[in-house]
Amino acid sequence: MSNEAPAFSDEIAASIQAVREDVARLHGELVRYGLVVWTGGNVSGRVPGADLFVIKPSGVSYDDLAPENMILCDLDGAVIPGTPGSDRSPSSDTAAHAYVYRHMPHVGGVVHTHSTFAVAWAARGEEIPCVITAMADEFGGPIPIGPFAIIGDDSIGRGIVQTLTGHRSRAVLMQNHGPFTIGVDAKDAVKAAVMVEDVARTVHHAREAGPLIPIPQEAIDSLFDRYQNVYGQNSDARR
Amino acid sequence: MSNEAPAFSDEIAASIQAVREDVARLHGELVRYGLVVWTGGNVSGRVPGADLFVIKPSGVSYDDLAPENMILCDLDGAVIPGTPGSDRSPSSDTAAHAYVYRHMPHVGGVVHTHSTFAVAWAARGEEIPCVITAMADEFGGPIPIGPFAIIGDDSIGRGIVQTLTGHRSRAVLMQNHGPFTIGVDAKDAVKAAVMVEDVARTVHHAREAGPLIPIPQEAIDSLFDRYQNVYGQNSDARR
Amino acid sequence: MSNEAPAFSDEIAASIQAVREDVARLHGELVRYGLVVWTGGNVSGRVPGADLFVIKPSGVSYDDLAPENMILCDLDGAVIPGTPGSDRSPSSDTAAHAYVYRHMPHVGGVVHTHSTFAVAWAARGEEIPCVITAMADEFGGPIPIGPFAIIGDDSIGRGIVQTLTGHRSRAVLMQNHGPFTIGVDAKDAVKAAVMVEDVARTVHHAREAGPLIPIPQEAIDSLFDRYQNVYGQNSDARR
Amino acid sequence: MSNEAPAFSDEIAASIQAVREDVARLHGELVRYGLVVWTGGNVSGRVPGADLFVIKPSGVSYDDLAPENMILCDLDGAVIPGTPGSDRSPSSDTAAHAYVYRHMPHVGGVVHTHSTFAVAWAARGEEIPCVITAMADEFGGPIPIGPFAIIGDDSIGRGIVQTLTGHRSRAVLMQNHGPFTIGVDAKDAVKAAVMVEDVARTVHHAREAGPLIPIPQEAIDSLFDRYQNVYGQNSDARR
Repeated sequence: MSNEAPAFSDEIAASIQAVREDVARLHGELVRYGLVVWTGGNVSGRVPGADLFVIKPSGVSYDDLAPENMILCDLDGAVIPGTPGSDRSPSSDTAAHAYVYRHMPHVGGVVHTHSTFAVAWAARGEEIPCVITAMADEFGGPIPIGPFAIIGDDSIGRGIVQTLTGHRSRAVLMQNHGPFTIGVDAKDAVKAAVMVEDVARTVHHAREAGPLIPIPQEAIDSLFDRYQNVYGQNSDARR
Repeated sequence: MSNEAPAFSDEIAASIQAVREDVARLHGELVRYGLVVWTGGNVSGRVPGADLFVIKPSGVSYDDLAPENMILCDLDGAVIPGTPGSDRSPSSDTAAHAYVYRHMPHVGGVVHTHSTFAVAWAARGEEIPCVITAMADEFGGPIPIGPFAIIGDDSIGRGIVQTLTGHRSRAVLMQNHGPFTIGVDAKDAVKAAVMVEDVARTVHHAREAGPLIPIPQEAIDSLFDRYQNVYGQNSDARR
Repeated sequence: MSNEAPAFSDEIAASIQAVREDVARLHGELVRYGLVVWTGGNVSGRVPGADLFVIKPSGVSYDDLAPENMILCDLDGAVIPGTPGSDRSPSSDTAAHAYVYRHMPHVGGVVHTHSTFAVAWAARGEEIPCVITAMADEFGGPIPIGPFAIIGDDSIGRGIVQTLTGHRSRAVLMQNHGPFTIGVDAKDAVKAAVMVEDVARTVHHAREAGPLIPIPQEAIDSLFDRYQNVYGQNSDARR
Repeated sequence: MSNEAPAFSDEIAASIQAVREDVARLHGELVRYGLVVWTGGNVSGRVPGADLFVIKPSGVSYDDLAPENMILCDLDGAVIPGTPGSDRSPSSDTAAHAYVYRHMPHVGGVVHTHSTFAVAWAARGEEIPCVITAMADEFGGPIPIGPFAIIGDDSIGRGIVQTLTGHRSRAVLMQNHGPFTIGVDAKDAVKAAVMVEDVARTVHHAREAGPLIPIPQEAIDSLFDRYQNVYGQNSDARR
């Protein structure tokens, strides 16, 4: 593989830069909401109009995540040589992100954390039941569990894609591991990561103290539909 | 409906501006006390001397909540055209706030959050028993549960009003949903939102570890009476 | 009672000013450690060499606690007229602080909070067992429960004094209410308030998951003795 | 013992200064991650190429931990006279740190905290089972419990060394006391202190709600091996 940077069109170059800035900034939201410690967790964003995505370097402090430190990869997870950050190793979860981008073309952002309560459900291999309206709004039902899989091949990526394909939820709790979330872009996936920990924590505490009241399915459907189509300032509620 | 701003008297215009500033600033208290994540939660305040209230726009980041972004509504929840912020949609909970202002004329502020422990009680449909003196001071007894109701008609607003009418508590936990609080003004309702999460968390943890000691009703009455009439720097303890 | 400020000697005036600054600043530690919400909680400090103490005003935001807003009281809890802050009401817990200063001459600081886990033990009326070495260091044994008492007479102050007299602990959990702590000065009492919540939280979580291992009494005695006499930079470990 | 500072070579003097800066700064990470309150907790770092280490003074506020306040000790824990900070007493855990440096030559950093959930496991004398992949990565298996031991002789240091020798874990939970962590340098030991609290909290909450799914031993081995050898930006994953 050559060490020379590819020649991108101006439009793609501008998209890459915009995604670098988004991805760098959005890591700060993981810190703000207490979803990560030390160098754990990662955000990536697909470059619109290109078979590329931008991801965090491996094992680098959240204090050092400037746009030019983010790493540009192709959809096989290979670093694009000669681009800013390409002297560093990308996140060790890069293969899982790449697998998602290859197999879910509507996905524009992927996030992974080890946030406390989401991991607690994952360690029991138990999906989070949909008993609060905020969860119906955001995820349209329970948060599913994905298979146990370890780093080294495509099994994490495959587990994410198989679990989330055809599912309303943008979050999956990989068993014994933690949450992966997807979204229309990196910000949407970060929002899902924030919300999955919020509902994981709330439902955990709710259930500690006694039986939960289920929400009728038709109410869940109605809340999910409204939130996806009406909430917020534009037609795409998730932006 | 015309797109032109109505002509307010100087006094009403000054009141509107003051409430915009209060409501914008008070959203920061929801963040400070960890009651909200992402764009969730909302504060509104009635404009004294007018059939108007000011509320947060829908789905907007807490970092962008300047006074001029707040939205002025009439008591049916309709945005007043031609006023600052009127190009945006108001909070999706606006109808519930409006219903409260229409039916509870002494209420000057309404707050809604999905704060963790208050929602946990709501997911079980269980009122919070009054076992700590701070709760007797602030709420005069248990925090009640309101009915299950979803967005789309007046059922949330009606549930709040029916539950809180004639009740000492300024907070209601809407089942499977979360707390709504009322107050003499927006600040008072925010205080109630802060306090309801505080007592929800404390009583949750207290009960996890064994049976709670009830407070005698006459002590609750005495504490509530004193706090409403003596505490603080003015005759109105809630300001 | 005259409205004119008493004539203090230069030495006493300097002491008062120093205690005002300490007490104002130390309220910030209650916020830093998450022990208080809104305007709850209070710190006071005795003025060395005088029958006076300085305490927080009632119901005032933690953002507004400058030294000149603190209130100077005599040991009956009466505000000293004509002094800075004397136009405001002192903390509604002033009578309890005053009672402690009157009856425990070695006490130079008193703190009261409604910190979550300390209140949780208080709501069950259950003392915190001494199962961690940090607790043996700091409190020399269990944290005791004080009687149920409500504001309005000397019963809170009397409950504090009766419970802590002859006890190693500088903290008492008043039943259904919350912790009061004492110390050689205001800072020492604030440290005790920070530590009592820390141990209340830790022992709460420890016991949730199974039986605790007791610490032998002779080890508790040895740890307490060392910490009081050796720890820190001066002979008085608590400063 | 003379009060004159020893004459260090330029290289050793530069190493000492670098470790002073690291150790001072790293105490801030204990605060950032909520592992310590008041003056509790301590970090030390070995001076490369010398029989020396740098540690925090006893009972000093985290706001006052400048490099020149750190204390230089020999491997018996004796303060080196005439060096910056030598007028203060070192951390009361200095003897335990010194024992570790004397007996574990590959250890370059030691950290001790009373972080909440790690202490909760320690109060039950129960090791943390390895049920999440982050724990397999970082610690290669369960976090072990060390013996009950109190300050005053070498028993704490001996307990740490005996428990961690030949163990994959860089963290030990001393019974009824709290975590001690070791690392290749001070930063690595601080990372272990951050991660041990993170996994202690997560596994605590996971187990509260039902049975945990074990991770197969061969998966633990594979994750530990990869993380030690591949993760991060250099060959030493722990830096």
